[in-house]
Amino acid sequence: MNKSLKIVSRITLIIFFTFSLIVNAQSDEDVLKTVYKTSLTNGKSYEWLDYLSNTIGGRLSGSTNAELAVQYTKVELEKLGLDKVWLQPVMVPKWVRGEKEMAYIEANGTINKVNICALGGSVATPNGGVKAQVIEVDTYKDLEALGEEKIKGKIVFINRALQPELINTFQAYGGCSSERYAGAAEAAKYGAVGTIVRSLSSRQDDYPHTGSMSYGDLPVEQRIPSAAISTNDAVKLSEALKKNKNLEFYFEMSCQQFDDVESYNVIGELTGSEFPNEYIVVGGHLDSWDLGDGAHDDGAGVVQSMDVLRLLKESGVTPKRSIRVVLFMNEENGLRGGRKYAEVAKAKNEKHVFALESDAGGFTPRGFSFDCSDVMFSKIEAWRPLFKPYLIHYFEKGGSGADIGPLKSDDIVLAGLRPDSQRYFDHHHAANDTFEHVNKRELELGAATMTALVFLMDKYGTETITNTKEIKD
Amino acid sequence: MNKSLKIVSRITLIIFFTFSLIVNAQSDEDVLKTVYKTSLTNGKSYEWLDYLSNTIGGRLSGSTNAELAVQYTKVELEKLGLDKVWLQPVMVPKWVRGEKEMAYIEANGTINKVNICALGGSVATPNGGVKAQVIEVDTYKDLEALGEEKIKGKIVFINRALQPELINTFQAYGGCSSERYAGAAEAAKYGAVGTIVRSLSSRQDDYPHTGSMSYGDLPVEQRIPSAAISTNDAVKLSEALKKNKNLEFYFEMSCQQFDDVESYNVIGELTGSEFPNEYIVVGGHLDSWDLGDGAHDDGAGVVQSMDVLRLLKESGVTPKRSIRVVLFMNEENGLRGGRKYAEVAKAKNEKHVFALESDAGGFTPRGFSFDCSDVMFSKIEAWRPLFKPYLIHYFEKGGSGADIGPLKSDDIVLAGLRPDSQRYFDHHHAANDTFEHVNKRELELGAATMTALVFLMDKYGTETITNTKEIKD
Repeated sequence: MNKSLKIVSRITLIIFFTFSLIVNAQSDEDVLKTVYKTSLTNGKSYEWLDYLSNTIGGRLSGSTNAELAVQYTKVELEKLGLDKVWLQPVMVPKWVRGEKEMAYIEANGTINKVNICALGGSVATPNGGVKAQVIEVDTYKDLEALGEEKIKGKIVFINRALQPELINTFQAYGGCSSERYAGAAEAAKYGAVGTIVRSLSSRQDDYPHTGSMSYGDLPVEQRIPSAAISTNDAVKLSEALKKNKNLEFYFEMSCQQFDDVESYNVIGELTGSEFPNEYIVVGGHLDSWDLGDGAHDDGAGVVQSMDVLRLLKESGVTPKRSIRVVLFMNEENGLRGGRKYAEVAKAKNEKHVFALESDAGGFTPRGFSFDCSDVMFSKIEAWRPLFKPYLIHYFEKGGSGADIGPLKSDDIVLAGLRPDSQRYFDHHHAANDTFEHVNKRELELGAATMTALVFLMDKYGTETITNTKEIKD
Repeated sequence: MNKSLKIVSRITLIIFFTFSLIVNAQSDEDVLKTVYKTSLTNGKSYEWLDYLSNTIGGRLSGSTNAELAVQYTKVELEKLGLDKVWLQPVMVPKWVRGEKEMAYIEANGTINKVNICALGGSVATPNGGVKAQVIEVDTYKDLEALGEEKIKGKIVFINRALQPELINTFQAYGGCSSERYAGAAEAAKYGAVGTIVRSLSSRQDDYPHTGSMSYGDLPVEQRIPSAAISTNDAVKLSEALKKNKNLEFYFEMSCQQFDDVESYNVIGELTGSEFPNEYIVVGGHLDSWDLGDGAHDDGAGVVQSMDVLRLLKESGVTPKRSIRVVLFMNEENGLRGGRKYAEVAKAKNEKHVFALESDAGGFTPRGFSFDCSDVMFSKIEAWRPLFKPYLIHYFEKGGSGADIGPLKSDDIVLAGLRPDSQRYFDHHHAANDTFEHVNKRELELGAATMTALVFLMDKYGTETITNTKEIKD
């Protein structure tokens, strides 16, 4: 097909779907109204989150709590009367924090305790801890210029703060996350004995924020312990260094990496009435870090995703395609669940047409970020007016979610729920990521917003994809 | 001028201003960028709110704390190097809660304590409290049908809940607020001995929420005490009544109304460089209820409004018109400050062209509600793209703010900041309206958003109004 014919076909297609949207507009509006009302008056997400957070708690991969969460969510999905519920086995890393970490600044004979926590994947300190002078840098990229002479035998303190002027706090986080992830491996190359990384928090407070780090291909014997320090204590340490660059920092951690263990993705399915072999996935990750109870990251995404299938049923929607809720295991420190799901889907030649992840907190939903073709995106953007009564306004192209990333192909639309991001990094990976910081209405609005998009994608979305493919042929 | 000529003129006008907007777009974008960055990196609103909330605390009209807040904000405004700062005297009501209230349900010989608080303006219970049987209604409008026979000697329990399916929680609040305001006066007509009103909260918890009520023209001797009960206890009481309609409710309150006292609106001004006799007002209310520290209602609006003038200065903006920050006294139980400001402005024949109020909490700003002409609103809507990078999307016609309401005329644009409303009524008028529930970034985004609108209205807005008036002539 030549180019101009292609364009004409696309325009015809757009007109056709715009027309069909107008014809169906009333009923779509009604469905959305029912979905939102059901979520806000008869949602289950908050009750499930209460259990996951307060009865189970933090759900680090390989922990007993993670397994309790697998069993709990499986049973709860079974109660919903879905067509299928099953566990998908996946081997996951098992890293254990051990005793609560301890750290202090020693300067001029005075000891000043500070709040730290081991980064996920860090080795322990030697028995009795590490005590050394400190060299402060803004980023691990500064280490090369400093060289071994200035670093050897010292603790590297990476004090890079999130940029407060960035409106999207995820962008601010992205500007610092490689410090946490790669800082220790880089510092070790120059003979550092440990790294202390400023917590990736958007707030000044006393909570250290953990998160994954990696030694890359660094030999085991060269690995050095790496911890996060609270933002208040990062300021304290930096100020103390300005007064006395010879001060010493002490920290002790007993974390440990074990062999991989078997765990599971939890999957439930409403089988499609017309195209059962086309799959739509909605999910979040069941594992969390261990310091808080993982209510925002990502208990919220888990319970919202579970409620999507329930809200579709309660709202009288019979999906044409098969809708799966997937509760991924091990997003935080391995992404093994996301990879396993995509691997199995590929092996079974399952046609996935849409995947939506909620992994940005249980705050008021603002919209979605889409990883898809421009044609598909224009189609989706036409649904904006349907979302306006619910104050959902953000429809942008961009990333989607870590767990669904491995499903990426030319034929799939990937999307991420985008809640208000201002408070997210106040809690992310820290002891204050707890249930009481999740607002019931905000959580339920998120579940409804996800359900609305899944409903529309099931009803319209893949038809466009199918037709677009025909145009290509 | 005939109608079609008017329309042509208006279209020309719109084209002209759209063109002038495009010409100026770059610099406006830059100003907004500076304003937001300054607020997020070097804002003062959070520090001021900390003092107002934690050092001063709840600021009920006529209280010592309210006077401390007047003095504190006056001094802080003076530090900003404005052109004028002054106090505008206003007589305000003085109602005092007295001892903490006490209440219980007595059924089948068992006493069950519940959480109540006196509504603002209520009379006390007689010494020793009130104990009586309870009649539950959904709304005070049900009382007429029940009549004196079923009500006399009883406590009327108005158990109307906020509708959870309403996305805008202010709308849900509006659906119940007259129960709180007018319920006691109505119940007294039928011989009730007290009223207990379900708290106007969007959450199930143990906090009673106060707020203003009025006896209207009911003679003093017929006034009955009126309290709010927490949402959890409202459910408890309703369920207890289903089991035993003869149960008794006891409550004791020692609140008291004193004579009016003198207080003040606090006003600061940046005098306009081109049109000093045209005024723009930005404000919030300095008084609050007494149970919490009034951080959201309306400490947030106060400190944001103060920061608008500071952010304009810090961002290098020289306003053409006179910009006033007005910290209104007595919004909660009298609106005396708002009325006084408008009265003085009218007496002095001051031309007010724009007023903006922030009185909906310190949450993430979503946009504004405008009370103005359609022509002016289309003009303002054209600024939407400037706000998009800051995720400000809500521009709708509607109400503005209680304090600026008395300024209403054909020539003024009134606007209210519209923050995310989901959590607001969790805290509104209750003991949990406290500083720790305000997020620094959210507060600062609100201050920046207000500053951006004031900047644009000062630069463009009133010109349109002037031209519109010329068209009328």
